[in-house]
Amino acid sequence: MRLAVVGGIAGGTSAAAKAKRVKKDAEIAIFEASNFVSVGACGMPYRLSGDIHDPMELVVRRKEDFEKTGIKVYLGYRVVEVDINRGVLFALGPKGEEEKYEFDKLILATGATARKLGVPGEDLRGIFTLKSLEDLLAIESFMAENEVRDILVVGSGFIGLEVIDAFVKRGFNVTSVDIATSVPPNFDEDVVEKVPAVLDSHGVKRIWGVSVTEFLGNGRVMGCKLSNGEEVKVDIVICSVGFKPTVDLAVKMGLELSVAGSIKVNEYMETSREGVYAAGDCTHSYSAVTGEPIYLPLGSLANRHGRVAGTNAVSGNRVVMPKIAGSSVFKLFNLGFARTGFVEKELKARNIQYEKVLIKAKDKAHYYPTSGEIIVKLMWEKDSGRVLGGEIVGPIEAVKRIDVVGAVICMGGTVEDLARIDMAYSPPFSPVWDPLTVAANQALKD
Amino acid sequence: MRLAVVGGIAGGTSAAAKAKRVKKDAEIAIFEASNFVSVGACGMPYRLSGDIHDPMELVVRRKEDFEKTGIKVYLGYRVVEVDINRGVLFALGPKGEEEKYEFDKLILATGATARKLGVPGEDLRGIFTLKSLEDLLAIESFMAENEVRDILVVGSGFIGLEVIDAFVKRGFNVTSVDIATSVPPNFDEDVVEKVPAVLDSHGVKRIWGVSVTEFLGNGRVMGCKLSNGEEVKVDIVICSVGFKPTVDLAVKMGLELSVAGSIKVNEYMETSREGVYAAGDCTHSYSAVTGEPIYLPLGSLANRHGRVAGTNAVSGNRVVMPKIAGSSVFKLFNLGFARTGFVEKELKARNIQYEKVLIKAKDKAHYYPTSGEIIVKLMWEKDSGRVLGGEIVGPIEAVKRIDVVGAVICMGGTVEDLARIDMAYSPPFSPVWDPLTVAANQALKD
Repeated sequence: MRLAVVGGIAGGTSAAAKAKRVKKDAEIAIFEASNFVSVGACGMPYRLSGDIHDPMELVVRRKEDFEKTGIKVYLGYRVVEVDINRGVLFALGPKGEEEKYEFDKLILATGATARKLGVPGEDLRGIFTLKSLEDLLAIESFMAENEVRDILVVGSGFIGLEVIDAFVKRGFNVTSVDIATSVPPNFDEDVVEKVPAVLDSHGVKRIWGVSVTEFLGNGRVMGCKLSNGEEVKVDIVICSVGFKPTVDLAVKMGLELSVAGSIKVNEYMETSREGVYAAGDCTHSYSAVTGEPIYLPLGSLANRHGRVAGTNAVSGNRVVMPKIAGSSVFKLFNLGFARTGFVEKELKARNIQYEKVLIKAKDKAHYYPTSGEIIVKLMWEKDSGRVLGGEIVGPIEAVKRIDVVGAVICMGGTVEDLARIDMAYSPPFSPVWDPLTVAANQALKD
Repeated sequence: MRLAVVGGIAGGTSAAAKAKRVKKDAEIAIFEASNFVSVGACGMPYRLSGDIHDPMELVVRRKEDFEKTGIKVYLGYRVVEVDINRGVLFALGPKGEEEKYEFDKLILATGATARKLGVPGEDLRGIFTLKSLEDLLAIESFMAENEVRDILVVGSGFIGLEVIDAFVKRGFNVTSVDIATSVPPNFDEDVVEKVPAVLDSHGVKRIWGVSVTEFLGNGRVMGCKLSNGEEVKVDIVICSVGFKPTVDLAVKMGLELSVAGSIKVNEYMETSREGVYAAGDCTHSYSAVTGEPIYLPLGSLANRHGRVAGTNAVSGNRVVMPKIAGSSVFKLFNLGFARTGFVEKELKARNIQYEKVLIKAKDKAHYYPTSGEIIVKLMWEKDSGRVLGGEIVGPIEAVKRIDVVGAVICMGGTVEDLARIDMAYSPPFSPVWDPLTVAANQALKD
């Protein structure tokens, strides 16, 4: 059994490591086009903030670590062609070396690419995306070599906001530009209404509801024109306007695509071609809410995909990738944001009949000194009561309870199931009625 | 409809308030023997620590608040007799006033009483329990009027440990005495093994595995003799060695008792006598794990009981008190402790066949500056995989995820269900594989 894994960040390395554990005598090779394997990319904003002292801490396992377990790693090797009928791939090494690798099974973990704005001047020096460790290192060396005071962050999804948080912490002047007027855009407006005030109070200049029309500069970026006519002075730009799955190779191989242009897989993470699997940001998951394929490029899911693809590639389709709640969480300064399932606007877009409740409560006992406001929003199916989604915004330490809603969604439960859970209580952790219970009780009009 | 509620702390006030909302025209009276209603008793350690500035902040709603909603509150009235056949109760007011109250339905929310040690000298001044707001105020005035440096805390359940935490924070010399050698006693030894070091590092003197044999003093407590012969100098003693349900009235009324001597109730919180309900620390819950009655005097459960008893008392047995996971949580300094279901030693005591796993992991991404060690222990049923219990010890902000295990228990789920939940991830909140997922995967040997 020879297994080739294309891509070695999250999904690919999880797949390879799991495959090796499942089938010790499998010959496994990872081809990674960049210079790093097994990168905890979600940690990059915390390097920008100075919380992490050495960017290499983001490398979870090195090439040597994999090779010790018998997994060969081709670092800096880009797979340029796959002959799926003959079971052979061709890769180009960092110095142009040609490598030919025969395989029985193949896992594509080609990841995703940061979207570009597609405006004039985008190739000026000083304009970056933040997807790979190379991106991070490029930002760091640019900042070391150039005087940087004014930072523009384009896009305010969770990564954009994490980057803003990081640079504010380090004392830079930060401007946030977003085409949206409610931020982060994948949360409903009513749960994130305090975000503008939070950014303002940290001195972030917000210019929202506009787009970038042009970057200005002479070799190096120095300014940015916006659709409202405004011009912003910038020393560096981080563009964080989403990802698209990297599927060139899959397309060349004739594999079917699915939602958001990601590689189509079945419940075994197997693509439209038998024996070829996919994992991570290049592919999709299936929703526990609707059963539909959903594209969520999240590190947590990439690792789950990888384990399933790795197991199945070397041992037949033995395990199923569970349908996902699609839970995620991030922080902006002292505020945590968490969501699961579908938020209201996503349910509307899907024409799903729902009911909703939004409550504001304290996250801890009202008399406890660090208690703060928490917002909980729940969406559920009109007749069945089945939970469809939830959003929580509040003190950082309070929002991970989203996983309780995620658990109910994964188990197909209702708001009544949620209301019945006796949540753990003591004053430093929650009010005597947990905010989730309050929301669920209100949903039941109880 | 006239409803009498005996006891007005947590279960009683929840019951009365809910009953009033369900049946607006019901005449409702609360009889509370102490001088306070609606006390958030779980907050008392946070008054001792100085976190709460005014002990009256612990009063959630005052007599006037209830009376505004049409609920009569007899404060300082002790119910001395109930003639259940005639539907009348007799109470004695603070000045000996006799009050006779006729009712159609009755709710007993008589609470629990702090256990005494039953040793010589226990009546000396300066020896306290901490169950009621009166206890708290008595401690405070004793400490205001007497020089206090050396504090002895007898018992190290969660309240004992919260009290230790509080007094250490205020700079007192604190000694902990417990008959147990593993603390807190309702957690398994292997998850709390770092508690001794944590107490030591905060300067707490531990004398465990011994009992108090005598308190010494002359009017006021000055010392304490232990079963190992040791003598401890003390200025004040807090005894926190558990609670027993207060059931004098119930016994007088001929009601059946259940586990731990608590008032026996059915799933509607109705006692063995039709039309008489019970709620809070005087009664029990039913376990979602085994279905058996379990006695857990927790504020969160008292409030749940109250809502069910209140609804059913005024509108017939309409709602069921859900079976409980029995989740609880508390903090000791910077360490959080949480449990749900049954822990290993409780399963053993019940002769339940179980399997278990204990993992140690980081609670956040390994490179995140505030990440610390978290211990997760899971117990599940051998054949079915049904989750039976869980324990989590780790950084405060990390242990509330016990509610995910509680959710799975309440929904009758398995370790596989737990493993399948895609937990929300980002570096400040968890590692890419949440510790709960790691534990569940290990349980599945996956």
